[in-house]
Amino acid sequence: MKQETVERIRKFTEDRDWEQFHTPANLAKSIAIEASELLECFQWNDTDYDLEHVKEELADVMVYCRNMLDVLELDEDEIINSKMTKNEAKYPVEKAAGRSTKYDQL
Amino acid sequence: MKQETVERIRKFTEDRDWEQFHTPANLAKSIAIEASELLECFQWNDTDYDLEHVKEELADVMVYCRNMLDVLELDEDEIINSKMTKNEAKYPVEKAAGRSTKYDQL
Amino acid sequence: MKQETVERIRKFTEDRDWEQFHTPANLAKSIAIEASELLECFQWNDTDYDLEHVKEELADVMVYCRNMLDVLELDEDEIINSKMTKNEAKYPVEKAAGRSTKYDQL
Amino acid sequence: MKQETVERIRKFTEDRDWEQFHTPANLAKSIAIEASELLECFQWNDTDYDLEHVKEELADVMVYCRNMLDVLELDEDEIINSKMTKNEAKYPVEKAAGRSTKYDQL
Repeated sequence: MKQETVERIRKFTEDRDWEQFHTPANLAKSIAIEASELLECFQWNDTDYDLEHVKEELADVMVYCRNMLDVLELDEDEIINSKMTKNEAKYPVEKAAGRSTKYDQL
Repeated sequence: MKQETVERIRKFTEDRDWEQFHTPANLAKSIAIEASELLECFQWNDTDYDLEHVKEELADVMVYCRNMLDVLELDEDEIINSKMTKNEAKYPVEKAAGRSTKYDQL
Repeated sequence: MKQETVERIRKFTEDRDWEQFHTPANLAKSIAIEASELLECFQWNDTDYDLEHVKEELADVMVYCRNMLDVLELDEDEIINSKMTKNEAKYPVEKAAGRSTKYDQL
Repeated sequence: MKQETVERIRKFTEDRDWEQFHTPANLAKSIAIEASELLECFQWNDTDYDLEHVKEELADVMVYCRNMLDVLELDEDEIINSKMTKNEAKYPVEKAAGRSTKYDQL
């Protein structure tokens, strides 16, 4: 995400004095709520979806993720790289290739 | 997200031949599932959470969002800025300041 | 649900002194979390699911719904019939037959 | 749930020829989506909720659970009692009393 996009998201919250609502717990609820609105685009059909609607709901999820990074003062690349290191160990290429099996059943 | 982080996420999927599972519908389910795992960190208590666990689950949500951007060939900043323009109109500062009321009840 | 099943669910909570955690908000989170665990049974494949796992996760959702009915002192049949009356009006047979379209686009 | 409520839910689906959409996977998505709408009643505030709205969203979750029981030909009391037996073993009273700790950390 470009720094100016990050700043726009922050300004949106600050202009409305909404930092008071952005507790980690409320943001976790918000991410889950928006993720379900994204899922709703595929509720009855996996392939016949409204792309414009998908883009909006995916953006909402990502904006709340950005809010949570801010509130917890986390670095996006740091937490993702740290998790990717774990994922790479949990799903070794030779075991996981071409299979959607969960790591604890590989 | 840094380009090298984006590339690491892509390589993880490609190395395991998992593109076949990454349909938009499956990724929407996956984002919702990981968002609920993040929510689980706050299931019984809003303030006494395990920060390391929160970081991992938030990272998982963001990785699947990145996967969906890739599959749909979307630009993160473009879709977020487009949605922010809508949000700014839906929640005018003078009406929304200091209130968590949903836009359709403002 | 049979009355003895309802009583077993209540006793489970009471024996563990868990009423203190069963606020409506915490139960709403819990229902969402268990619903996502049910969804996880279908994360990568819509038809090749583990029925035993599905049964367990569906049961978990229903148990938390039962807890919420108890905490809010609601009658299951009353709230469902009240909602069905609304659903029947929102989705008139002649408009909705054979279509999965959402009511506001019918 | 009274048998007449069960029948009303079934008739609603049949009258609209919606059995075709009620695959287990689609119902799992639907339960998750409605559970998140229930969660939305508590998005920014745990205690100041709209009870009428909560009742409607809880009813929606329970209706889709009922649909899933029907599609998979499951008995509600059977799957819940089977899961309660597991829960009772996972959370022994002497270990779990008064604590919201997850079973794998008890």
